[in-house]
Formats: sequence, C-alpha cells, structure tokens
Amino acid sequence: MGLLLCIVAVFLQFSLGFSFPLRFNQTTGHFKILQVADMHYANGATTKCLDVLPAEFATCSDLNTTAFIERLIHAERPDFMVFTGDNIYGFDCNDSTASQVAAFAPAVNAQIPWAAVLGNHDQEGNLNRMELMQHIVSMDYTLAQINPPLASLTLPSEGHHYECGLASSIDGYGNYNLEVGGAQGSPLANKSVLNLYFLDSGDYSTVPGIGGYGWIKPSQQLWFSQTSAQLQAEYKSDPTSDNTSAPGLVYFHIPLPEFIAFSASNMTGGKQEGISSADMNSGFFTTIREAGDVKAVFVGHDHVNDFCGELSGVNLCYGGGFGYHAYGMAGWSRRARVVMATMGKDDNGGWVGVEEIRTWKRLDDDALTTLDEEVLWNPSVTHS
Amino acid sequence: MGLLLCIVAVFLQFSLGFSFPLRFNQTTGHFKILQVADMHYANGATTKCLDVLPAEFATCSDLNTTAFIERLIHAERPDFMVFTGDNIYGFDCNDSTASQVAAFAPAVNAQIPWAAVLGNHDQEGNLNRMELMQHIVSMDYTLAQINPPLASLTLPSEGHHYECGLASSIDGYGNYNLEVGGAQGSPLANKSVLNLYFLDSGDYSTVPGIGGYGWIKPSQQLWFSQTSAQLQAEYKSDPTSDNTSAPGLVYFHIPLPEFIAFSASNMTGGKQEGISSADMNSGFFTTIREAGDVKAVFVGHDHVNDFCGELSGVNLCYGGGFGYHAYGMAGWSRRARVVMATMGKDDNGGWVGVEEIRTWKRLDDDALTTLDEEVLWNPSVTHS
Repeated sequence: MGLLLCIVAVFLQFSLGFSFPLRFNQTTGHFKILQVADMHYANGATTKCLDVLPAEFATCSDLNTTAFIERLIHAERPDFMVFTGDNIYGFDCNDSTASQVAAFAPAVNAQIPWAAVLGNHDQEGNLNRMELMQHIVSMDYTLAQINPPLASLTLPSEGHHYECGLASSIDGYGNYNLEVGGAQGSPLANKSVLNLYFLDSGDYSTVPGIGGYGWIKPSQQLWFSQTSAQLQAEYKSDPTSDNTSAPGLVYFHIPLPEFIAFSASNMTGGKQEGISSADMNSGFFTTIREAGDVKAVFVGHDHVNDFCGELSGVNLCYGGGFGYHAYGMAGWSRRARVVMATMGKDDNGGWVGVEEIRTWKRLDDDALTTLDEEVLWNPSVTHS
Repeated sequence: MGLLLCIVAVFLQFSLGFSFPLRFNQTTGHFKILQVADMHYANGATTKCLDVLPAEFATCSDLNTTAFIERLIHAERPDFMVFTGDNIYGFDCNDSTASQVAAFAPAVNAQIPWAAVLGNHDQEGNLNRMELMQHIVSMDYTLAQINPPLASLTLPSEGHHYECGLASSIDGYGNYNLEVGGAQGSPLANKSVLNLYFLDSGDYSTVPGIGGYGWIKPSQQLWFSQTSAQLQAEYKSDPTSDNTSAPGLVYFHIPLPEFIAFSASNMTGGKQEGISSADMNSGFFTTIREAGDVKAVFVGHDHVNDFCGELSGVNLCYGGGFGYHAYGMAGWSRRARVVMATMGKDDNGGWVGVEEIRTWKRLDDDALTTLDEEVLWNPSVTHS
C-alpha cells in the first residue's frame, strides 16, 4: 500500500511537474515576492496595537495590519506572498482558525499564491503546530505544504529511493519547496529557474538544560540538501542549461546564529535589537553554504531588525516587523520586504536564467515609502 | 534483491544481537577503552620521528609508536582500543595497506577488539578513504564498520523503515556504533549498557570558497540521532531498565568548534595549540546535546592539546598526540587516553547500569606515568 502511494505520488509529481503554479512574467521577466513577517494577528478589530504613537492608539487594531497588506498588494502587485511566522499571536486568539483566516485573507481575497511557515507564537492558541499547518494547507490560493511529499526523496546521484520513510520522520511542520517556472513560451518554461525553500525553525528548545528558541534539525537539513541537489541536477540535465544552478531563496522564522555577523559597516538596513537566534548552532548555515544554490535567507522574529548582510556569498535578511499587534517602536513604521528576481535575455531577445535578485522594503506610511533597495545577487558578481 | 538483503540484515541483527562482542567484566564491572590518536604511521623502521630530543632522534622511528602501544596494552590491558584517525600518514606511506597493517598490528597481535576512524591524512597515500575503511574492516579483531548496516535505520517511534535508502547515502566512510553488553550472568547481560559511536569527520572542505577541515554532515547527524533514539528506546523498553539511558561515548578525528570553550580555568590537561576545527559549525554538538545520552566526545587532530572540558553536560576531550612520526613537542611525552566505565551494584551485590566513567592519560616515559585522572561522569552528578 505504501509502495502504491509512492508510485501514485511519483506519477503525480512527474505528470504535473510542468504546470508550474509559480512562473516568471512573460513580458517583464520578473517574479516578485512580498514577505510579511510577524503579523501577530489575533481577533481583528478588538485586538489593539502595540508600540504606536499615542495619537494612533485609539483607532489602531489588527485591521491596520490587514489594511497595510492590502495597500502593499495594490502597490506592488506581487506574484507570490510569504508569511514568515508569528502570523498569529496564539496566546491572544479567541480561535486560531479564525485568526489564520483573517490574517491570510488579503492574499486569498486578492487571489495571490501564498505560502506560510510558523513562528514561535502561532501555536499558543487552540491549535498546535500540526493543526495550524493542516489548516493553512486547506486554504485557498496557498501553496504551503505540511511536509515534503513522500516520494520526493529520491537521491539523484544514486537513484535510490527513501521508500516513503524519511518524510514521516522529518522534524517540524511546514518544510517544503516551491519551483518557479521560466517565462511561458521560452525554452525555460518547463524548468524551475528559481527555487524557494521553506522550513519550520521551531518554537522553543525542548532539550533539558538548554533554553531559548528552537532550531532546524538534521532531518530537515538532510531534506533541504537532498532537495537542493536534486533541483540542481535537474537544472543542469536539461540541454538548455548553462551548467549553473537556479538560484535559491530560503524562508523561515528564527534567525540563524550567523546573523550576528553584521554591523553598520557590512549591512543595509537597521539593527535595533539583538539577534534572537537559538542558543545552539545547529549548522543550517553550513548546510545552506554547502548546497551552493542559495543566494539569500529571509527570516522574521526580531521585529525592529530589518537589515540584509552578506556572509560567505549568502545574504541573510530580516523582513522587518509587519504586524500592529506585535512589539515594535512607536514612530518607526511597520514594514515589509519585497524581493524581485529577473530573468536575463540572450542576444536574440529570448529569456535566459535569472540574472538578478533585487530587494527593497516598503514602509506603512502615507507614501508606502520604498527603502534600502539593493541588488542581492547577480551571476556575474562573486561576493566575498 | 535490496529487500532480501534488508531482511537478511534484520535477521542477522536480531539473531546476533545478544552475543555482544564487547562486554563489561563480570568480576570487576569494568570496561576499559584505550584511545590512540594520530599515530601518523608510515613505513616502520625507515620512517623517522618528528619533534623528539636530539639524543632520541637517531634511533627513533615508527617502531617507537608500535612499542608504545605494546607497552600500554601490557600495562592497561584494555578491553577495547580506538584509533581516532591519522592512523597512517598517507603522504609518506610506500603502501597504505602495509602501513595500516603495521599501525594496527599491536591490537591485532594482542587479540584486542578494536575500532578505527579516519583523520585528514590517512587518504594521502595509494588508498582513498573508502578503500582504507574497506581494508580496515577486513582485518582481524576489528569491530570497525564502513557505514551503518542498511536495516538499522528503523524509526522506533513510528515503526517506519528507511527501506535500505539512507545508508547508501550517508556521507563519509566509517560511521557506525558499537554496543557494550552488561556483565555476563547479570540481568543486563543481554543489553547494551554503554554505547560507542564512531563518525567520519572528513578531511578537508570541498565547498568552493570555504577552506579548512571537513565536518560532520546532516546525513551523519541524522543517522547518529536516530541510532541514539533507538538505543535509548531499547534500553528503556526492557523491564530491568531504570528508565534512564545507557551513557554514550563518541569518537572521531577533528575537534568540534565548541572545543574553543575551554581555558585553564575550566579544563583538565593542556592546551598548547589552537583548536583546528572546521571553519564552519555544522551543528554536531547541538545534535549530540539533543540526543541526551552522550557523556563525552573524544577526538585527536591537535597533537599537543590533551585536555578534557565539560560544556553543557558533555565532556569534550582530546586524546593527546601518540605517534612519533607526527608533530609534537620535543621533551613533551607522547601520550594516550584511557577511559574506564564501571557498572554499579545493587544492595544484593548484583550489577546495575554504568555508575561512573573515568579517564586518565598515560605518558610514554619509563614509568608510563598516569596523568590527569578524573571522573567524567556519574549518574548522580548533574554537570552545569
């Protein structure tokens, strides 16, 4: 029976493989991602704001968070949205299901494909982490998954299968990847030219004697590295390939310990609080670095840090605090991070692989001010 | 065919499970391990010593390394020996096979069960790392394995099997575990009361842009954590169990980055050079800490460091440089580390689980001086 499920899953994977739900724009060559970090959504109109100016307080609620998302969608028209955890603030939610529905509603209503991972506060209400992800994957327009499909764990190098074993044992809820197809009508239309990885960075340490936040475990790292290897092999196996890899972007909630590497001299954006990573280094930066395809990592968690810095060729970026029912700084605008990847063109005007990944932030002020725009990566620049 | 191999392997595992090749002494309750680090063996009598006093140089060769092992075996009568890498210095070996035969000969000749892992120098001769381990496992009295048997990767928590997948993909050569049975005639005779883990810490980074030494990868860490979980579940499932875990000891070559945590104030032994760990932290200390059963980690690599220090309840120990064709310090004796675990006794004088793990070093001087004896662990002491 397990084998049958595997075969069905493999069949579905291959038969559906070429109908990418995410794809670069045929006209512009762009693919734009809006990251929304730490909404801390609870009950809507009755849930008050934290850390806003006195004049703003009386009329400020979760609805301001919703309004900010809606304005951003209108202004940026993203191709895809990522909610990087603490989407709801479980402790204050009357009903976690209703809070998730309200929190993600702007993406659903705008019919924008979206993904989500969990933070450390989501599960403090009446749904545990598994239930939260089960609810998320049932919603409209989401591309989120609870965990990798059983049959996806083939090892390309040796042709061995995990035979439906590893997926049932991967740590956490919300470890999955999404492929972004090349522009329609181009030779890259049937190929992932940008790879998005999502991981569950956990909530809190469960190890006796170790406090603090959770971390990404070996099972998740092995899934990530095998998935990356498989995607790179697929990209290179195609005759249209230029023997590089499609760039990868990684999204999760809790910053890696390596985020500590930055100060004003080597980052873009602000660092107004400490790096609240786990107390232990679980090595995921090393695993990312070894995989080789990842150009940037995007997290949330620390609301008043919103910088990007580059370490050993990998950009480590905060989204910046988004939600009004989350701590912040009065007078310091709530904000979001946009990432735009752009395909290149060959001499004949045909689309080739991704040639640039750019980022900027948007502030929730009258002008939705754009801030800290920068190029994160392009193939010709080798970072230090 | 793969499935058949699995079934055979499972059968062998279960049918042979109760005939432990390693076992605590029925009379003394002791199990003693001799660690030999960094022999750097090459061609025997024609391979000269490094860093010895001028008066010693003329007559000093690999044979001094052999003589030291033989003296130690005679003095300590260990139940088991572990060679923690750089067993041979491949670059200087006429023939790596012959060098390994000579290097491990004292253990073989004394008919002492032994294990080995690889360092960063072993593969510099005419055998690669896989071939070195293939040769090692063919030798007499060795309990070394190339990698975990295919069927050992069952998940006890869910009853799922890896179906022969992961073992074929584990990184490195020489990742395995050994179980030490309780004293014969006691209720613990059919049970592993001390667990030994061996890992391949690699040689050098193969990641573009990252130099330095190798590290323990997610596939190895996942194998380790699953093996530890399985052993702990087995220990606790037995009615004779006191609901604790059997203590674990881990052996590999290259020190973890966490070895940097120690200075004179919080270690026993010497630190006379830097900690030559990998440039990246791959998180194995976190994985060890999370597993919960490991009381001590033993490495080599830095010949003139021979300390033990305790970090978050886990002792991190160097073996101390052993081999004469390895750098050292003239006038600073070559040395080895002994570990002795001892079973406890109940009120009726019957053996119970391990109650103490003790260590000391032995110097290659006339008296084979014993140095830095200390208790690494006992169940009643909770380390900081």
